[in-house]
Amino acid sequence: MFLGKLLKRWVSSYNDQEKELARVVRQITGRKPFNIKLYHLAMQHTSVAFESGAIKGFKESNERLEYLGDAVLGSVVAEYLFKRYPYKDEGFLTEIRSRIVNRESLNRLAVKIGLSQMVAFEGRKNSALSHKSIYGDAMEAFIGAIYLDRGFHFTRRFIIHKLLMRHYDIEEIIETTTNFKSLIIEWAQKNSKAVEFTVSKQGGKDGKQFKVNLLIDGDVQAEGAGYSKKKAEQDAARKTCENLTLI
Amino acid sequence: MFLGKLLKRWVSSYNDQEKELARVVRQITGRKPFNIKLYHLAMQHTSVAFESGAIKGFKESNERLEYLGDAVLGSVVAEYLFKRYPYKDEGFLTEIRSRIVNRESLNRLAVKIGLSQMVAFEGRKNSALSHKSIYGDAMEAFIGAIYLDRGFHFTRRFIIHKLLMRHYDIEEIIETTTNFKSLIIEWAQKNSKAVEFTVSKQGGKDGKQFKVNLLIDGDVQAEGAGYSKKKAEQDAARKTCENLTLI
Repeated sequence: MFLGKLLKRWVSSYNDQEKELARVVRQITGRKPFNIKLYHLAMQHTSVAFESGAIKGFKESNERLEYLGDAVLGSVVAEYLFKRYPYKDEGFLTEIRSRIVNRESLNRLAVKIGLSQMVAFEGRKNSALSHKSIYGDAMEAFIGAIYLDRGFHFTRRFIIHKLLMRHYDIEEIIETTTNFKSLIIEWAQKNSKAVEFTVSKQGGKDGKQFKVNLLIDGDVQAEGAGYSKKKAEQDAARKTCENLTLI
Repeated sequence: MFLGKLLKRWVSSYNDQEKELARVVRQITGRKPFNIKLYHLAMQHTSVAFESGAIKGFKESNERLEYLGDAVLGSVVAEYLFKRYPYKDEGFLTEIRSRIVNRESLNRLAVKIGLSQMVAFEGRKNSALSHKSIYGDAMEAFIGAIYLDRGFHFTRRFIIHKLLMRHYDIEEIIETTTNFKSLIIEWAQKNSKAVEFTVSKQGGKDGKQFKVNLLIDGDVQAEGAGYSKKKAEQDAARKTCENLTLI
C-alpha cells in the first residue's frame, strides 16, 4: 500500500519524456519501471552523451549498460540453449547463441519490440549510423537497465518469454546455413593457428566468379568457389571444416 | 527435517570417489552439493569423455558445463566491476574483466582453491596438456555445475565472495600494464579495420633489438621498439592507442 503510494508519487514527478518512456517500458516488459533514469540512460547513444556533474570528463551514455546487458543476455541465452539441447555439444551451442545475439539480430529485435523509436542519437534517422549498431546497442543497454531495475530472475523471464520465445524461430536459425568461416576462425584461435583467405582466381563473363584458397599457417587447405568473394570463402571454409571434422 | 533425511540417504549412496568430491565441493563452496553428478561431470576433461547411453555418438565431458560456466562467470564479473567502478567506461570494464577470466588466470585459480587435484584427464599429471587449459576449463565447468545445482544467487555470491574477493587483487590487476595490442585489435574489429604488425628492423649486438611498425588498413600508424618482437609490438600499440585517444 505504502509502496504503491510512493510509486505513484514518483511517477507523478516524471516529465513528459519520462512518462512516454515509462509507458513504452511497461508495454515491452509488462511492468512499470522502478527507476526510470536507468531506462532513460539506456536510450542515450554516445553521440548525445552528456558530461556527468560528479566526475569531470566522464560522459554518461548507454555504453556501460550495454556492456552489462550484453553479459546478462549472453548468460541467459547460454542457459536456455544448454537446457533446450541436452545432447548438443558446446560448439553448436556457441554458434547458435552467437546467431541469436549478434548485432544484426539485436538491431532487428529493437525495431520489432518498438525500442528503436526511443533511442536518442545525433544525426538523421535512417542514416547509415542508425542502421549500423545503434539499435542493437540500445537493446543490450535496455537489458542492462532491466537487470539493475528488477534483478536477475525478472530479466531472465523477460529474455526467455518476451524475446526468445516470441521473436526468434530457433529451429529455423539452426537450419540456416552454418557460418563455416567463423567456425574455422574460432578453431584457429583456440589452436593458435593463423587463417588466411587469398583470391586465387577472379573470372567469368562479369568478373564476378571467385576462387579462394584457405590457408592455415601458410599451407593451402582447400579451394572454394562462388559468385562473390564471401561465398567462395564460405565454400573453402566448409571444405576445411569437413577435412578437420569440425562439422 | 525430511529434506535432511533425504539428503543423508543420497549421500550414503555415494561411492568413495563421489564422497571425496562432495567433501571438496563443500570445502570450496561452503555447502554440500545437492546433485553430485553435476560436479563429477565438471571434472571430466574431454580426453576421458564417455559415450552417453542415451544418444549414440554423444560423448559426455565437461565442455557443455564449461560453456555455461563461462557465460555465468562473465556476467557476474561484469556486474561486479560495473558496480565497483561507476565512473569507468566500458572499455576499462571489458579489459579488466578479460584479465580476471582469462585462461591463465582461471588455471591458477583452479590450483589455488584445490580444484585441480579433482580433474580427470588422460595423460601424465604436469604434462603440457595439464598446464595449457584443463584446469581453467574445469574451473568454468565447476561454476556451471554450481549454477545448475544451486541457482544464480548462490553462484553469484560464490564468485564474488569466494573467488573475486579472496583470490584477486583487482587494484593490482588494474595497475599492471595494459595490453595495448589487444586494445588496438578490439578497436579495429569494432571499426572494421585491418591491423598488421611488420618488423622494420632487427639489430643490436645480439640481434634482439626490434623495431616494429603498426599498420591500420595498410598505413603505418606508429613505430615501436623493444628487446623482443612482442615488446616492440606493445610499444607501437601503445603509441597508436594514444594517437587514437583510446587511452
